[in-house]
Amino acid sequence: MTSSAALESLRIEARARDREDPLARYRDEFVVADESLLYLDGNSLGRLPKRAEALAARTVREEWGGRLVRGWNEGWVGASRRLGDKLGRLLGAREGEVLVSDGTSVNLFKLAVAALKAREGRTAIVTDDLNFPSDLYVLDGAARLLGGGRRVTVVAARDGIRVPPEDLEAAVGKDTALVSLSHVSYRSGYLHDMEDVTRVAHAAGALVLWDVSHSAGVVPIDLEGSGADLAVGCTYKYLNGGPGAPAFLYVRRALQSVLENPITGWFGRESPFAFAPGFVPAAGAERFLVGTPPVLSLAAAEPGIDLAAEAGVEVARAKSVAMARFLEGCWRTRLEPLGVTLRSPRESERRGSHLSFGHPEALAIDRALVLDMNVIPDFRPPDVIRFGFAPLWNTFEDLFEGVSRFRRVLDDELWRRHTADRPLVT
Amino acid sequence: MTSSAALESLRIEARARDREDPLARYRDEFVVADESLLYLDGNSLGRLPKRAEALAARTVREEWGGRLVRGWNEGWVGASRRLGDKLGRLLGAREGEVLVSDGTSVNLFKLAVAALKAREGRTAIVTDDLNFPSDLYVLDGAARLLGGGRRVTVVAARDGIRVPPEDLEAAVGKDTALVSLSHVSYRSGYLHDMEDVTRVAHAAGALVLWDVSHSAGVVPIDLEGSGADLAVGCTYKYLNGGPGAPAFLYVRRALQSVLENPITGWFGRESPFAFAPGFVPAAGAERFLVGTPPVLSLAAAEPGIDLAAEAGVEVARAKSVAMARFLEGCWRTRLEPLGVTLRSPRESERRGSHLSFGHPEALAIDRALVLDMNVIPDFRPPDVIRFGFAPLWNTFEDLFEGVSRFRRVLDDELWRRHTADRPLVT
Repeated sequence: MTSSAALESLRIEARARDREDPLARYRDEFVVADESLLYLDGNSLGRLPKRAEALAARTVREEWGGRLVRGWNEGWVGASRRLGDKLGRLLGAREGEVLVSDGTSVNLFKLAVAALKAREGRTAIVTDDLNFPSDLYVLDGAARLLGGGRRVTVVAARDGIRVPPEDLEAAVGKDTALVSLSHVSYRSGYLHDMEDVTRVAHAAGALVLWDVSHSAGVVPIDLEGSGADLAVGCTYKYLNGGPGAPAFLYVRRALQSVLENPITGWFGRESPFAFAPGFVPAAGAERFLVGTPPVLSLAAAEPGIDLAAEAGVEVARAKSVAMARFLEGCWRTRLEPLGVTLRSPRESERRGSHLSFGHPEALAIDRALVLDMNVIPDFRPPDVIRFGFAPLWNTFEDLFEGVSRFRRVLDDELWRRHTADRPLVT
Repeated sequence: MTSSAALESLRIEARARDREDPLARYRDEFVVADESLLYLDGNSLGRLPKRAEALAARTVREEWGGRLVRGWNEGWVGASRRLGDKLGRLLGAREGEVLVSDGTSVNLFKLAVAALKAREGRTAIVTDDLNFPSDLYVLDGAARLLGGGRRVTVVAARDGIRVPPEDLEAAVGKDTALVSLSHVSYRSGYLHDMEDVTRVAHAAGALVLWDVSHSAGVVPIDLEGSGADLAVGCTYKYLNGGPGAPAFLYVRRALQSVLENPITGWFGRESPFAFAPGFVPAAGAERFLVGTPPVLSLAAAEPGIDLAAEAGVEVARAKSVAMARFLEGCWRTRLEPLGVTLRSPRESERRGSHLSFGHPEALAIDRALVLDMNVIPDFRPPDVIRFGFAPLWNTFEDLFEGVSRFRRVLDDELWRRHTADRPLVT
């Protein structure tokens, strides 16, 4: 096939797939302010659901403005649990196991410290270098805070891309208190096998704590079935919950009466509004709450969770897998010949909903894409560009077009004018 | 004076004071959905500023919806600091000493643990039983988590109302690591003398950590001048920031490079977006940040801070002091004869912006006020009703009318139909 024939064939495929997309109608559920913008960063921040705009406005005006403090009696107090139960159904959790509250790092701290205390005598936390940096910092901080020789062991990824269960197995031992990993790596997109890893951890007597920030809503998760003990995650990526939206935590029911929240705030207490002396942990996962929930942010986050549930995670996953394959095909045809490498796994079952591309000039290419080509991917130091695909609102043509613009940046060497640019936040 | 003459004289006084109120025009800055509702609970949740409704809507639509992930480069990352600097000017802090982030209890945990680690070898935390219960729980939890014999000493209030510095002085000693108190008590409204208490703590070599939730925006605070080391507080009371609005923390500049945040998340790291291995604390108070800030809640909280600044804390305090005196007069004339006690200090300089009233049937009275009389005060177990007054939007006539309805509940024994009611949240 000639190069232009291959190109045309990809374009035809993209359009055909978009026509057959069972999720196509969901795009209209989201605000798309600029149709010409190719937004390929739903793995960092999802789009605004139209319903979220409406619900946030109503919550501000009618609840805060109209009901004032009575709102606490009319739904606010239970909001973390109510949203948690909704979200839990997407995560394979049972009622009362998931709460939406605080931030991911705060939740990770609470659960990691609780796990370390529950495995007193064991000193090792095992993780990998595909884990999100903040998670590594928090785990390290928890180990240092508790002392007693506790330390973090970081398993290195093969080729910077994958950490199979056997690599973890080699690092996990009788001294391991906790195995804590990102289910899908923010970097390579590597998707851990939750069941396999949990088995490895449990075989050694360790607890396991998952960060499902990059998989919630887009990869089927079975916290219950996999035997996972603990999990945390954010709601602002594929769950489209808004910038800095509240995070969530999961505590398996059997552990809820065993583990202790180190941050003993009133919302984690039994009968917080009794204002009674002495901390008595609440029954259930609620003991891992801390203070008043951020009502407005919770309201804005709810429609994204609803939409993920309505679309169905299995359906979203099927589209996401097909998108990854299609994007890989575009890359092979159009980018690999120009020296762009694929830094994500090749097997569909081992990757999440973004692909990472390597190039020595990745930063300058990213800047050219954003500033000259109206594409938003993101850059991760030192040399990776991520293309994320959100099944509820990205199209196959978005991917085709994104790769075309990437190619143009390389062909026309548009990146050269950005070699002095500094990385932006995202 | 006859009873009806006294009543008429109070009504005249209320109206005269309202006519002369230099803050009268601020009421129009807030949404008042129900003019017949007497809202006397700004000490729990402030009203919705009209500007907050507009700003929240704009942030959702234009920033999240329109700018998407670019928002992080366009103001979101620095929002905690930007709002913190604005707020810091109301607290007597310098630039870079206040950050708006997380919740009050999470912030208290971070700072208390940091302080305890910085005073290694000392095992006592001194507080009082006027402190907010969640603060007591968190301090206790921090002490237990760190172990090493650390423990909390709770000084009892005199008459349940006041804890003068000399009572604290008797409890503070060479073993005291930290003195941590609510500046204004949620219960009696007792206002600690920040400077005196700080002197007591420092004389013993201890650090001092204030919770200014019930004073921020309505009582002049001089963190710098008083020598305070650390502070936390919420923005949803007199700062009118919205339900569950983000809290804030203060770290005196001289301590910023000394203290360590136990929750080592990426927003507390130097160059978080380098995604680099190893936690290196950020310079400045930023090391006490943890994760992505709740952008929508921060946006909603900003106008309340602006309004407090525009009105001026000294002006608000002058009105608040006058309101407390006026309310005390109404109580003496109309409620004390019917057995209602005053559970707040009598001296203006020792109380904040609410008064607490005691009655054996306080719960039933509160329910009657809310459900039958369209007044919202709040109930605190076992027997206290609080009347809060927010100088930016409460009037003297609100207080007069609130007491009148309280009186009617007693005269007509309306509370009798509520003796079986359970306390609601607020």
